[in-house]
Amino acid sequence: MATTSSRPQKRWDTRRTAKAERLRTGAAHCDGKVVERGRLKDLLQNVVRPGDRVALEGDNQKQADYLSRTLADCDPERINKLHMLISSVSRSEHLDLFERGIATKLDLAYAGPQSVRIAQLVDDGTVQIGAIHTYVELYARMFVDLPPDVVLLCADKADRDGNLYTGANTEDTPTIAEAGAFHDGVVIVQANEIVGSEELPRVDIPGSWVDYVVAADRPFFLEPLFTRDPRHIGDVEILKAMIAIRGVYERHEVVSLNHGIGFDTAAIELLLPTYGEQLGLRGRIAKHWVLNPHPTMIPAIESGWVESIYSFGGESGMNRYAAARPDVFFNGADGSLRSNRVLGQLAGQYAVDMFIGSSLQIDGDANSSTVTDGRLSGFGGAPNMGHDPHGRRHSTPAWLELARGEGASRRGRKLVVALAPTFRAGGVPTFVETLDAVDVGKQAGMPLPPVMIYGDDVSHVVTEEGVAYLYKAHSLADRRDALAAIAGVTPVGRRADARRTEALRRDGLVAFPEDLEVETRLANRSLLAARSIEDLVAWSGGLYEPPSQFRDW
Amino acid sequence: MATTSSRPQKRWDTRRTAKAERLRTGAAHCDGKVVERGRLKDLLQNVVRPGDRVALEGDNQKQADYLSRTLADCDPERINKLHMLISSVSRSEHLDLFERGIATKLDLAYAGPQSVRIAQLVDDGTVQIGAIHTYVELYARMFVDLPPDVVLLCADKADRDGNLYTGANTEDTPTIAEAGAFHDGVVIVQANEIVGSEELPRVDIPGSWVDYVVAADRPFFLEPLFTRDPRHIGDVEILKAMIAIRGVYERHEVVSLNHGIGFDTAAIELLLPTYGEQLGLRGRIAKHWVLNPHPTMIPAIESGWVESIYSFGGESGMNRYAAARPDVFFNGADGSLRSNRVLGQLAGQYAVDMFIGSSLQIDGDANSSTVTDGRLSGFGGAPNMGHDPHGRRHSTPAWLELARGEGASRRGRKLVVALAPTFRAGGVPTFVETLDAVDVGKQAGMPLPPVMIYGDDVSHVVTEEGVAYLYKAHSLADRRDALAAIAGVTPVGRRADARRTEALRRDGLVAFPEDLEVETRLANRSLLAARSIEDLVAWSGGLYEPPSQFRDW
Repeated sequence: MATTSSRPQKRWDTRRTAKAERLRTGAAHCDGKVVERGRLKDLLQNVVRPGDRVALEGDNQKQADYLSRTLADCDPERINKLHMLISSVSRSEHLDLFERGIATKLDLAYAGPQSVRIAQLVDDGTVQIGAIHTYVELYARMFVDLPPDVVLLCADKADRDGNLYTGANTEDTPTIAEAGAFHDGVVIVQANEIVGSEELPRVDIPGSWVDYVVAADRPFFLEPLFTRDPRHIGDVEILKAMIAIRGVYERHEVVSLNHGIGFDTAAIELLLPTYGEQLGLRGRIAKHWVLNPHPTMIPAIESGWVESIYSFGGESGMNRYAAARPDVFFNGADGSLRSNRVLGQLAGQYAVDMFIGSSLQIDGDANSSTVTDGRLSGFGGAPNMGHDPHGRRHSTPAWLELARGEGASRRGRKLVVALAPTFRAGGVPTFVETLDAVDVGKQAGMPLPPVMIYGDDVSHVVTEEGVAYLYKAHSLADRRDALAAIAGVTPVGRRADARRTEALRRDGLVAFPEDLEVETRLANRSLLAARSIEDLVAWSGGLYEPPSQFRDW
Repeated sequence: MATTSSRPQKRWDTRRTAKAERLRTGAAHCDGKVVERGRLKDLLQNVVRPGDRVALEGDNQKQADYLSRTLADCDPERINKLHMLISSVSRSEHLDLFERGIATKLDLAYAGPQSVRIAQLVDDGTVQIGAIHTYVELYARMFVDLPPDVVLLCADKADRDGNLYTGANTEDTPTIAEAGAFHDGVVIVQANEIVGSEELPRVDIPGSWVDYVVAADRPFFLEPLFTRDPRHIGDVEILKAMIAIRGVYERHEVVSLNHGIGFDTAAIELLLPTYGEQLGLRGRIAKHWVLNPHPTMIPAIESGWVESIYSFGGESGMNRYAAARPDVFFNGADGSLRSNRVLGQLAGQYAVDMFIGSSLQIDGDANSSTVTDGRLSGFGGAPNMGHDPHGRRHSTPAWLELARGEGASRRGRKLVVALAPTFRAGGVPTFVETLDAVDVGKQAGMPLPPVMIYGDDVSHVVTEEGVAYLYKAHSLADRRDALAAIAGVTPVGRRADARRTEALRRDGLVAFPEDLEVETRLANRSLLAARSIEDLVAWSGGLYEPPSQFRDW
């Protein structure tokens, strides 16, 4: 064998040594683990080094905005060339980091509110994009080829030993903390308050994972991303919801599911206690949910539809309600919600019958994307939950019903349902010849178009015209024709041939409302279990406390 | 709207109330959270209730065996009809629970050592199987339709407040603890020792998640599952390893990867510092790994091949070595390894270029399974990592090289490589007309055959005859012919037609050793960087401490 003596000397603790050195220079700016508010910038300028890979907690909802604002205010002479890992690029200072020359490279999952500006900054070379990921894929890389040198996190409460209470919005914090704490990254946390150990309701992240805590100048920013005001739900959404409930939920006995964000699925949530009840579906469908605490779920919960909800994050105003419904929500011994995006994504990928979500654009092959002209919005969680996971091995009736293949190759299939109106506001067609994503991808120099959900993973498409049962198609031509049949007078829908559509209806690849016994004349707002935020508050017995922007009383 | 007054009264805290009642009756058998060893059976008989869903930590390696032995010893008059969730059914008492009438239903992921007995117990109706899962799928269901009422876990050290130090084998503990602690399950933990808080090296799981700790009668059982003695690696494994390195690793520039368990991949690990070095591949391939601390990785690590290893669990004897190589392994601030099966599976699913693993049986469509006649062995992690994850959105050169599709439908593909000899010991063919799994599945009443990895997810098959590049096949017939070409004189291989095979070689769907410039005459043990466990110890500079069964000195 080759002997050890012939090998070159190698250092095995470069990360550990570097961290120790950072902590040494940081020591002048803290008291134990506690950083005084006025010293944060000094601390960052000593602890963060040029070229560092920095994971900054920008989540779907909560934002470590005191840390991001302070980092963006640092001296670019001292801190520069940072490689940022940010799940959700949501804050203007996330991009200020690049404009100020502090950061150069960005790996992300989602960029909703900043999607236009990010496209511009990529275009002019200010931001170099590593890749746009689905959430769990970005975290996964923190344990493989993108381990962070510094992680910047946020919590509700911390004690002086660094023990953290996240409150309901646990979200991504434990996972990013783990990536930092267990590979010699420096872990810095902003907390809304620093309290005595005995005042922590529970510990979500142990203090031995945390290097520094700082009391933020104001509570971390939290966006009520999953709140939909029922007043904005119109008859088209209600008709689609009726079609979805009969044509998908009831037909396949969908017991466990994830709902994407938006008014389309909010309409379904509000129709379960009315239309669903009339159909006798309570207890048969939609019992186990993986989703944030949507306020529009309250009537279904109160009506006894829902056995459990596991959440990726919390939702503003829903904390008292969730705490009062511990059989449904996953709460800690302290009584408050705990969420976890990784476990939620895992549950939404592997443990549910169905993913259903809205799409901005769908092409003739059922590929869909939320990337439209000039917006680089990213993916979030949809790619992970919106595909058929070939690693699944347990069966449920819904999954088995979509089974295909023979012998050893036979397996079930997840329901991946795209829900969309044929046209959006302003007469913009949803169904298009070519996704804008194809051009956006080219312009941004991406190796592949930024498609959110691939057509071959989509089992059903639901519009106000009906349902296309794509999973039943034996050929690509069948798939395209079935999709065209429910795409209205969009460019894709105009391809539909009436006789062909009749054949597809006979074969069960297409169903129109009359085929599903959906009475379109009933599709109006009187079917909604709640027609306003005020109604939701009443349903909750006053436990739901909507954020001020959703109140008009 | 429907008003709240018209709704039936509903209890929302049945789980919370039930837990409080359990803790009340448990209080007589503990001092705070600490249960005296002699009182554990009394505690379990008071806290566990008939019909409970109980998650018992049976991991891939570590076992909560004091808890499982004590539970199996309980009075079936008091505790019965349990629904057990056990990742890895590895201990005889896991099945004693069923024979003694304490448990009736089992959801599992893997049953290696108990696979024959479990098949018998299913056959005679003693065990009712819910489903056999891949690991993460079983955990995912704990947050959806299978929330546990009681979880039984193990740790290295605990303090009296329930704070846990897992040591290197963190494995599944944090995830199962989270499922229990955050939905009013009772969390009971055995620790090798209960120590003062200041003696905990670090906190892996916060005490506020834990209800009871008990000092075990002996350290938890830990199987050295990933240790392969190089003495048992023969020329056929070495030839396959050479073929794999040239035909897959080098050709596709595989930078990040997972290796399955077994001598086939161990041979590759031991050829990197010799054969791989000769080929000039160091620094170009195999830099980022997701795998347990395989002792056979030591020479590659010491030779500077490996940038990082993220682990699902630890490995007996490897703790000092991993602690001394913090740049490579993910260690805590205390210096010892932390692992995490969920994050490891996530990394192995989404963040690596390649999964490569051995198969016991492969059919003509490249479906494979470790389930063979009379053994219900389950799946473990392979289905999750051994499929092409359609939710992946970032690119690497290897992933992009396998891209297919046009326009918006174009996407890359994960390398999923099956590695197998054409025949196993005793002249048993690996390549068969029909997987035993098809019959085993029927006999066990499973809705689908228990296939480990589906053929359409397999991109390459490597045998001692060569490589089948299945991802290049344009038709099912091409796939079958390419596979047959490297399947030797097995039932599948005998189908191969010589002229057809020549055409496939020309088109690059098949490569024989000479096509890859692999000199078969060099395939012998002199190529191994280490030829014994003793060699591995020497490579480690004495840091690797093999378990006694692997020592003969």
